[in-house]
Amino acid sequence: MSASSLKYDFFNVSIPVEYVAVVEVDRVKKLNAFTQQMFTDLGAIFRRLSVDPDVRVIILTGAGEKAFTAGLDITAASQGALTGGGMPGAEKDTARKAWDLRRHIKEIQEPVSDVEKCEKPVISVMHGISYGAAIDISTCCDIRICSKDTIFSVREVAIGLAADVGTLTRLPHTQVPMSWIKDICLTARDFGAQEALTMGFVSGVYDSKQAALDRAMVLAKDIAAASPIAVQSTKAVINYSRDHSVADGLDYVAVWNAAMLQTQDVKDALFSKKEKRTPKFAKL
Amino acid sequence: MSASSLKYDFFNVSIPVEYVAVVEVDRVKKLNAFTQQMFTDLGAIFRRLSVDPDVRVIILTGAGEKAFTAGLDITAASQGALTGGGMPGAEKDTARKAWDLRRHIKEIQEPVSDVEKCEKPVISVMHGISYGAAIDISTCCDIRICSKDTIFSVREVAIGLAADVGTLTRLPHTQVPMSWIKDICLTARDFGAQEALTMGFVSGVYDSKQAALDRAMVLAKDIAAASPIAVQSTKAVINYSRDHSVADGLDYVAVWNAAMLQTQDVKDALFSKKEKRTPKFAKL
Amino acid sequence: MSASSLKYDFFNVSIPVEYVAVVEVDRVKKLNAFTQQMFTDLGAIFRRLSVDPDVRVIILTGAGEKAFTAGLDITAASQGALTGGGMPGAEKDTARKAWDLRRHIKEIQEPVSDVEKCEKPVISVMHGISYGAAIDISTCCDIRICSKDTIFSVREVAIGLAADVGTLTRLPHTQVPMSWIKDICLTARDFGAQEALTMGFVSGVYDSKQAALDRAMVLAKDIAAASPIAVQSTKAVINYSRDHSVADGLDYVAVWNAAMLQTQDVKDALFSKKEKRTPKFAKL
Amino acid sequence: MSASSLKYDFFNVSIPVEYVAVVEVDRVKKLNAFTQQMFTDLGAIFRRLSVDPDVRVIILTGAGEKAFTAGLDITAASQGALTGGGMPGAEKDTARKAWDLRRHIKEIQEPVSDVEKCEKPVISVMHGISYGAAIDISTCCDIRICSKDTIFSVREVAIGLAADVGTLTRLPHTQVPMSWIKDICLTARDFGAQEALTMGFVSGVYDSKQAALDRAMVLAKDIAAASPIAVQSTKAVINYSRDHSVADGLDYVAVWNAAMLQTQDVKDALFSKKEKRTPKFAKL
Amino acid sequence: MSASSLKYDFFNVSIPVEYVAVVEVDRVKKLNAFTQQMFTDLGAIFRRLSVDPDVRVIILTGAGEKAFTAGLDITAASQGALTGGGMPGAEKDTARKAWDLRRHIKEIQEPVSDVEKCEKPVISVMHGISYGAAIDISTCCDIRICSKDTIFSVREVAIGLAADVGTLTRLPHTQVPMSWIKDICLTARDFGAQEALTMGFVSGVYDSKQAALDRAMVLAKDIAAASPIAVQSTKAVINYSRDHSVADGLDYVAVWNAAMLQTQDVKDALFSKKEKRTPKFAKL
Amino acid sequence: MSASSLKYDFFNVSIPVEYVAVVEVDRVKKLNAFTQQMFTDLGAIFRRLSVDPDVRVIILTGAGEKAFTAGLDITAASQGALTGGGMPGAEKDTARKAWDLRRHIKEIQEPVSDVEKCEKPVISVMHGISYGAAIDISTCCDIRICSKDTIFSVREVAIGLAADVGTLTRLPHTQVPMSWIKDICLTARDFGAQEALTMGFVSGVYDSKQAALDRAMVLAKDIAAASPIAVQSTKAVINYSRDHSVADGLDYVAVWNAAMLQTQDVKDALFSKKEKRTPKFAKL
Repeated sequence: MSASSLKYDFFNVSIPVEYVAVVEVDRVKKLNAFTQQMFTDLGAIFRRLSVDPDVRVIILTGAGEKAFTAGLDITAASQGALTGGGMPGAEKDTARKAWDLRRHIKEIQEPVSDVEKCEKPVISVMHGISYGAAIDISTCCDIRICSKDTIFSVREVAIGLAADVGTLTRLPHTQVPMSWIKDICLTARDFGAQEALTMGFVSGVYDSKQAALDRAMVLAKDIAAASPIAVQSTKAVINYSRDHSVADGLDYVAVWNAAMLQTQDVKDALFSKKEKRTPKFAKL
Repeated sequence: MSASSLKYDFFNVSIPVEYVAVVEVDRVKKLNAFTQQMFTDLGAIFRRLSVDPDVRVIILTGAGEKAFTAGLDITAASQGALTGGGMPGAEKDTARKAWDLRRHIKEIQEPVSDVEKCEKPVISVMHGISYGAAIDISTCCDIRICSKDTIFSVREVAIGLAADVGTLTRLPHTQVPMSWIKDICLTARDFGAQEALTMGFVSGVYDSKQAALDRAMVLAKDIAAASPIAVQSTKAVINYSRDHSVADGLDYVAVWNAAMLQTQDVKDALFSKKEKRTPKFAKL
Repeated sequence: MSASSLKYDFFNVSIPVEYVAVVEVDRVKKLNAFTQQMFTDLGAIFRRLSVDPDVRVIILTGAGEKAFTAGLDITAASQGALTGGGMPGAEKDTARKAWDLRRHIKEIQEPVSDVEKCEKPVISVMHGISYGAAIDISTCCDIRICSKDTIFSVREVAIGLAADVGTLTRLPHTQVPMSWIKDICLTARDFGAQEALTMGFVSGVYDSKQAALDRAMVLAKDIAAASPIAVQSTKAVINYSRDHSVADGLDYVAVWNAAMLQTQDVKDALFSKKEKRTPKFAKL
Repeated sequence: MSASSLKYDFFNVSIPVEYVAVVEVDRVKKLNAFTQQMFTDLGAIFRRLSVDPDVRVIILTGAGEKAFTAGLDITAASQGALTGGGMPGAEKDTARKAWDLRRHIKEIQEPVSDVEKCEKPVISVMHGISYGAAIDISTCCDIRICSKDTIFSVREVAIGLAADVGTLTRLPHTQVPMSWIKDICLTARDFGAQEALTMGFVSGVYDSKQAALDRAMVLAKDIAAASPIAVQSTKAVINYSRDHSVADGLDYVAVWNAAMLQTQDVKDALFSKKEKRTPKFAKL
Repeated sequence: MSASSLKYDFFNVSIPVEYVAVVEVDRVKKLNAFTQQMFTDLGAIFRRLSVDPDVRVIILTGAGEKAFTAGLDITAASQGALTGGGMPGAEKDTARKAWDLRRHIKEIQEPVSDVEKCEKPVISVMHGISYGAAIDISTCCDIRICSKDTIFSVREVAIGLAADVGTLTRLPHTQVPMSWIKDICLTARDFGAQEALTMGFVSGVYDSKQAALDRAMVLAKDIAAASPIAVQSTKAVINYSRDHSVADGLDYVAVWNAAMLQTQDVKDALFSKKEKRTPKFAKL
Repeated sequence: MSASSLKYDFFNVSIPVEYVAVVEVDRVKKLNAFTQQMFTDLGAIFRRLSVDPDVRVIILTGAGEKAFTAGLDITAASQGALTGGGMPGAEKDTARKAWDLRRHIKEIQEPVSDVEKCEKPVISVMHGISYGAAIDISTCCDIRICSKDTIFSVREVAIGLAADVGTLTRLPHTQVPMSWIKDICLTARDFGAQEALTMGFVSGVYDSKQAALDRAMVLAKDIAAASPIAVQSTKAVINYSRDHSVADGLDYVAVWNAAMLQTQDVKDALFSKKEKRTPKFAKL
């Protein structure tokens, strides 16, 4: 079954252009706020796209003009497990509650991590309200861009702590300055698109949601036109290198490329360049 | 004994606003230069504030208009152990001198590290001359801001090496570009507030020392008003994540939050938001 | 034999100013494109300079006005081992080919790593076309600056993958934002000097190649005039710290300085400052 | 649905004693050799048992007298993907085949890792032929014991390489001497129960399969009678500590126990000891 | 003040032979069980001995014939903070209690870690009952030997969890087989001297406490007679290497020895060997 | 040029059996003691054998009956750089001497590490006096066996420290008990073959040097007869896994095998087993 036929309550998944999938969070009435089910669905979608040979790059966006996502759904937040309330077994002792919470947090972390583990590049296009889960999820994406009206906020401190599903862990690994990370996380203050760009959290700001999506599509088409071996190897090696020493990284890329350099794509890329034609790379 | 009653020769410690401590280096005649005793006192102050339930956030500043600190006291530097001279036992063989030096460097490193280990967020507000120890200490702080007249310099190269008590180690972990770190460290050149902001070493520049302090107080009050569980958990998790892989970070935050999500503060924060009142969080 | 007498086909090595070596890639007709032999020579040059007591800092530049380097030589790329083609033993099974490729990639990685392992600071001055190998090599340098006409590009994705000899591994360790790293690597797009500066990949942009070289010479002279013990210790400690935790870094610098603080240079630096004369530091 | 009601083609899962689950590999005709489906089922079983409150400890054994398991099923081995043959898409280029293989290896690794990730202690009881997958799986278990007739062998070298699903990775982490690990892995030779005991691979050898199972049951009952909070915390902390530095381990256990020490079980354990009665711990 | 003049309620510290200190736990009536104060004192003793130039090696033993130590004092265990009970602030919410517990565990961990951080080699001589804290502390020692009547037990599981102050963290780093570690930790069973020797937890078993002490004294005198630079460097480098990769270890020892090889002791050792006399090494 | 034609002053290199190289240290008059040149030659030999397609496994032994090697040559030790004496530039300041020493230690470490980096398995066969360098070098080998008359000793402490070229770093990575490692290293005492076996440092003890060599030849022939892809992959993956977490190891082996499973050797091994003939694997 191809990716374009996937159906979810609050996500639209399409392949508008060859090899480019678009995942749209669509719960406009609730500012695209996330329920627990939506996290689960998000993971399922990205696990599927990760191995779909018809997909080479993914754009993640939110429906409507107001919000990429307002974050965790407020009802879930006040009743649900993510904030430690409403868990089954409230009569349990503290340690057992803690055990349940730990399991539960890991359950929510997993689908979010599926976005990061996706073998294909993911471009997050944010706009409007981009709170909480917006940061959790977009830090799992490879490229982050946004419209100039975007308002970001890390919410843990604002709501008295939440089950961190990635923001505090992944923000330092986006390699933006620590002083700024601490500033936005310890105050839970709003910050805008321009500040996010200056600090490097996003790598592009555009005039409108549509302009940002247009730019994402340009990037996506470029990526989709390139060798999927080269693109996906590049993603894999950079991710490994970020978490390991230079010596480890060099060894890993040598092992990796021992197989991957035996691709036809290198010859195809070089010859088509000489012959000024567009190469067609086999599916991966 | 509360933090506000601490007395030190060259530090003023006060709690001008509920939960906000201010630590002021006060040795104005010497441009707030640090003696070895001052490092020791600095550590003692932060160990105290770290566990003082009346303190939720700390502002670190320097007295006078000219300098946050000119760094290591020049007399100490030319006679003292920090530069390898004047150590007791100059008659010892090279290896034994080295052994003494290593112990001594670790002794000085420890109080500086106490600033980093402080459980509460620390905001460093720099101005004027901010040399050497200014970098050692402020890289231990969570948020760094400064006035526009600030002049920074890393001093090792300028004085023919010094017992590094943190600058060279911690600068790479502030996550600012390596090319710039090498530039300022290998030349020991002065750099200004604007350059520090552009490169991400500080996350805010203000017109005057007072303006920077005012901004720090705004940040501090925001932090002090939030759940101390949320604030201090956020600091702890970000620090862990910076030094570990994403997988390790996600596991750590799940373990951490298994306990911390069982706080009243989440409910207090959510209900007070609904009821449009300011929550009062219990001391920590 | 001193560094200035080294002869290579496509490199000029000189010491125009006391203690400052200049390494110039000189294959102008081919836009300074790298053959495999040139990588080997590059490593040999930096291994020599690393231990030459007459050298304290190195400037790396490219001859001609058009290019720092266009990257891997195109003929090599289409025939040679770097792209998996043309390896001896094409009749071997896939695993044996992979084994040869892995060995071969490591062989090419080694001389590039010699630039990084050089004990002396290396300043990379880029201009014009700075593709592929330009990034591989300059990420091994300590300080990167460029002229405003510089055009950079990471080439793996453009040529269907290449034996990465450092770019994908070292870019994350330059500590520039990950979103931008992924953007330029996954698209293989050109990017200019200003973008490189904003993102922190270079720490200075100058009006022309000559202006950039002039700036490099100012930096180099400053470094050459300082204590070589201080300068080279600073480089070594920062490099260690980048790849280790803060605790490890503090321990390492204490061990390192146990020996290095026993230098005469500290006294020389301090006394000459008092006496307002320029210190002369012994060779290292 | 309780664990005891799980049905699988080649596994028997039972709870013969309160809180003690027994998982028996049962494909006696084929010496309990593993097909790919059996790996998948194994993972599913352990994911279920990991969160089943009626299970506190698991014994893993093989049906019949001849073999714990002969390892990978020979038919699968000669046709299937685990050895690189028979994969769909044999017409793909080498890099694409490599990509498929990597995905496939990870798919098989996952259910094996589920044994290791199981929150409850797992005791592996081996006997007879214990080849290949026997090592892969038992290195995921916490305690390894065997009967004196057990014959072990690591098979990679014997069959010209196989998709390692854990043996080569986990053997060094069993903390037995490296010289012996290399000896058995590089020669693929058989080794017996006594050698496995002397080298520490197993921690007990018994006269027969039944005697080994009896011993496992004694251990399992002891574990099942203890506080599940204490038991599972112990497992979690030891596993973390094995892969991290002492400093990291101490920090982790402090965070972990901050929640877990708030259990009723400590009081129950201490009081029941004073009162010489057997404590009853709540389910986890 | 020399080490021999230190006075503690439940520890005897003496220097019976030049450079050999003996620390004896002496609370015989309570089987040398540890109160919290005793942990604190233990840390203070080892911090002192670590820098005492009259001490080159330390023997740790327990007074009386019955026990090295029975572990945590039972009264402390049932009332005190180590088991989560009796902490001030029982009215606090769960998260705040967890915060206090974490701080408290770290406070107890610190003096135990002081044994590990001691610059001089520490030989733990165990006999009789050696429970709980006996393992916590002896895993911080360099060499562990015991009498044949020793009975060991890891207690976490037996008492429903305890604030681990090192056992679970450090046991894997003693490099004994993981299967055995899990066996003794998950069952909390007793194990004897011979088993401890076979598995490598101790490196010598002797007929009686006195015989074990005699052996320790032989080892200690040998160590005390050697160059303290050589001995303490050896300890430091092995400890570093255990927690780091081989590449990191080789680099560290090169940096370390750059200073330490400049000792007189090498010449003294070599000449005195030629001249068949005993070298006298300067204090460290 | 084939390995068998290599000529060195104090090493004999031969290929007595197809694919099995024997490297014999031959300086019998000096008990095979190592000069600096011999370390250099050792490295050169192993770099050559590592890539020689006619070699699949290497046996390392010492000529004569008395010693595998007595370690560092005594003359070198008392005059030379390895002990900090006799370095050129004795008039240099302490820091510059330290710098030279560090460089020098790294120079000696490198050829020793070449033994470890050798792609083919190396079996160290020790006998008689096996001091100092015997440990440095054999810890780089994959399998260590010895004759029952072998006397081992780690020498650092005996000679007042020496430039560690691997023993202290690599012993912990042989995964033998830490208590025993500290015992032998801190006392520099002799220990015999049986103790080495019990503790796991060697994995076999034989009645005579010849018996040990015979056993090594049996192991070597087995290894030489197997698929070189399987053998060398096994070595590479185990070495990586030893220094990394389980998660990292599993990922690495998946990447590694993505290429290596595409070997003919798997089919050859399986078919020849069915057909009961000996497979012939292509050279690597």
